[in-house]
Amino acid sequence: MSRVLADLIDGLRRLPGLGPRSAQRLAHHLLLRDRQAAVRLARALEQAASRLVHCSECNTFSETPVCPRCSDPARDPSLLCVVEMPADLEALEAARVFSGSYYVLMGRLSPLDGIGPQELGIDRLLQRIARPELREVVLATNFTAEGEATAVWLAETIAAAAPHLKVSRLARGVPVGGELEYADPATLAYAWHDRRSFGG
Amino acid sequence: MSRVLADLIDGLRRLPGLGPRSAQRLAHHLLLRDRQAAVRLARALEQAASRLVHCSECNTFSETPVCPRCSDPARDPSLLCVVEMPADLEALEAARVFSGSYYVLMGRLSPLDGIGPQELGIDRLLQRIARPELREVVLATNFTAEGEATAVWLAETIAAAAPHLKVSRLARGVPVGGELEYADPATLAYAWHDRRSFGG
Repeated sequence: MSRVLADLIDGLRRLPGLGPRSAQRLAHHLLLRDRQAAVRLARALEQAASRLVHCSECNTFSETPVCPRCSDPARDPSLLCVVEMPADLEALEAARVFSGSYYVLMGRLSPLDGIGPQELGIDRLLQRIARPELREVVLATNFTAEGEATAVWLAETIAAAAPHLKVSRLARGVPVGGELEYADPATLAYAWHDRRSFGG
Repeated sequence: MSRVLADLIDGLRRLPGLGPRSAQRLAHHLLLRDRQAAVRLARALEQAASRLVHCSECNTFSETPVCPRCSDPARDPSLLCVVEMPADLEALEAARVFSGSYYVLMGRLSPLDGIGPQELGIDRLLQRIARPELREVVLATNFTAEGEATAVWLAETIAAAAPHLKVSRLARGVPVGGELEYADPATLAYAWHDRRSFGG
């Protein structure tokens, strides 16, 4: 096999979730059907790897030292929402309920993968919550086992470091459009305990 | 979201089999854990897209107009083995039973995908089989429905164009290490009909 082709297959199979067979098929597809896509992907990878840094405020990927959202004076500096990944931030932005600041952990506590407090770079979050204008931290990590553990640990850490701050967590309950018949018992239990006064 | 990051996610999701969520996860993984891999993959893509051509003899991917295998005078020019993809060629080479020449179709007949004889570029194969030194063409397309249809169609086309050539097909049967109990009935039927004399 050509060295150039072997290098391409090798580069593709290092992507998570791609085995040697899929990498080979992907390489053949790109070379046979879509060399333009291969060239565009090459440029996008090179640009992203060389130009994206972590925003010094919210830690998300950014082309500038401070990302456009953190540079926006219209965002409320008294509210800070902590999410796991940039995709979670985008999901919350799409809901258009929140105009405060974000902090992106770029992960979650995951002892099995060797990701503890140090690896999550919690120091920068603690610097971030030391600002005098901050009043509330909303923990919006996922409602998975690891996301919940991360939220509990963050709540304790923040309470110890800044006891004056309100720390909250997104509500658990039945999703919009959801049917009780298909909701799992734990979700129904949360929805029951956190029930709200009608019209309240 | 940063334009550079959006371009990377867009480039990745154009790969077959990758949806928008996987593309986003892949982009985050590369940026967070392995920028070196991103840079290497970018170079490999760029090199492959710009440098690989189809070997003018066997049609496989090659860095030179004629690939090293087709330039090798030790390969038997009287035998031609037709395969679907370069991966099939590599599999046969690994079996070390064949020292003739190859022709790689770079696909198979697939009417549902709009791949007919024209799209398979059959003209070059017909030029290839017109050589006086050729005696036998071994059809080694896959034993899938499309691969079988391609083999039947190739056999007819070659018989019409070059009736003096022997045209053969790889044997069907129980794989080495296979147990009859788990073999499918069609395979067992082929294995029965194509049974060989013991020691023969």
